[in-house]
Amino acid sequence: MNFADLKFNDQGLIPAIAQDVNTKEVLMLAWMNPESIESTLKTGKATYWSRSRNKLWIKGESSGNYQRIRNILYDCDGDTLLLLVEQTGAACHTGSRTCFYREIPIEGGKENGR
Amino acid sequence: MNFADLKFNDQGLIPAIAQDVNTKEVLMLAWMNPESIESTLKTGKATYWSRSRNKLWIKGESSGNYQRIRNILYDCDGDTLLLLVEQTGAACHTGSRTCFYREIPIEGGKENGR
Repeated sequence: MNFADLKFNDQGLIPAIAQDVNTKEVLMLAWMNPESIESTLKTGKATYWSRSRNKLWIKGESSGNYQRIRNILYDCDGDTLLLLVEQTGAACHTGSRTCFYREIPIEGGKENGR
Repeated sequence: MNFADLKFNDQGLIPAIAQDVNTKEVLMLAWMNPESIESTLKTGKATYWSRSRNKLWIKGESSGNYQRIRNILYDCDGDTLLLLVEQTGAACHTGSRTCFYREIPIEGGKENGR
């Protein structure tokens, strides 16, 4: 594909949000480079760039919890991707369905007109 | 609040995904620093750190399209925030409801078992 519309950061990466295409849950955020985008498009499975291991990371390769790609969107300034995926099992390595399972308390709370 | 659970990048920032609490649409991704998180918690309105203007950015301050905070979640490794918001009007400066309105064509397409 042509990456002209996409902006990668100074490490050559772009953040990719994975959203469950069925439940609309936001599952995780990881990073991609051109190579991982190509791999994702070719295989139909979300493939990220692991910043800790410094290598391609086929999501689910070890856990079996693959993310099958249904759509890939990019934002107005071309610096973020949104993957709509069919998530097998849990997205999070903790076993949670989504990586976003902890909440920051809102001072004053929702009762306070927020 | 205590930021001990959060990891900021080498620019002191953390990515924040804004999701519409009602429709579950992913609206945008922007960046926060501790000051913008404090401001968000205090005012109940999403406040980001503008990387282009290098200053606090109260979303909607100029357009009127505020994001009222309903919940703030953070992910398993503490390096991404997820804001559940009530979005007034359009989230995107283009007038689109969400910043993710363009699609990367998937080679082989969805017919291809993807």
